[in-house]
Amino acid sequence: MTPARDPLSDTFQALADPTRRAILARLAEGKASVTELAEPFDMSGPAISKHLKVLERAGLIERGREAQWRPCSLAPAPLKDVADWLDHYRRFWEASFDRLETYLEDLQKKESKHVRKPKPRGRKG
Amino acid sequence: MTPARDPLSDTFQALADPTRRAILARLAEGKASVTELAEPFDMSGPAISKHLKVLERAGLIERGREAQWRPCSLAPAPLKDVADWLDHYRRFWEASFDRLETYLEDLQKKESKHVRKPKPRGRKG
Repeated sequence: MTPARDPLSDTFQALADPTRRAILARLAEGKASVTELAEPFDMSGPAISKHLKVLERAGLIERGREAQWRPCSLAPAPLKDVADWLDHYRRFWEASFDRLETYLEDLQKKESKHVRKPKPRGRKG
Repeated sequence: MTPARDPLSDTFQALADPTRRAILARLAEGKASVTELAEPFDMSGPAISKHLKVLERAGLIERGREAQWRPCSLAPAPLKDVADWLDHYRRFWEASFDRLETYLEDLQKKESKHVRKPKPRGRKG
């Protein structure tokens, strides 16, 4: 039995495309019309519209109600859900980083044993 | 021209499935064999293997080299990449939360105007 489609899967699915992530990056700078969003991509209007629909269905963008222009804007709530999900795994990559740091520190200690240290000089107060 | 497939898209694609996320959640508790991973799901061996392949291709899991057992373990590096990508958008949901907080504070102030306050009592020092 396959579990029913869930919002988090829709979000990840929507983010699994470089063009859609580029659209979000553009919207992070401010609202934009479909024409403005299409400009940097060598894509047809319908192709861009399809991407926008995927983003809108995942709740990652909102369309304005202004009759002609209908600007798109970023809707961050699903990204917060991803961040919350991700937080359960944070300890794993932080642990990997700690292990690397310990390894490098140990390496440095070993190295320093082989390096001749300058003799400490007496200081006159 | 569709941009070439990239690692971040592969990661998001791999995460866009509740079964695969459940497998990662199980592996967050420790290494597990394919049989152990398959147990909680009412799925065939080949179906689970397919999910594991998607996760492995995205670099989210590693398979041990032990001849028979070949335990799976969590590989957190791609999740860190997702977290780094997500950090560019953090200010958006934090801003939304701040706006909500300000709204609720304003609402509370307005409410308190309509509530009869107890008269301040003189205090004897």
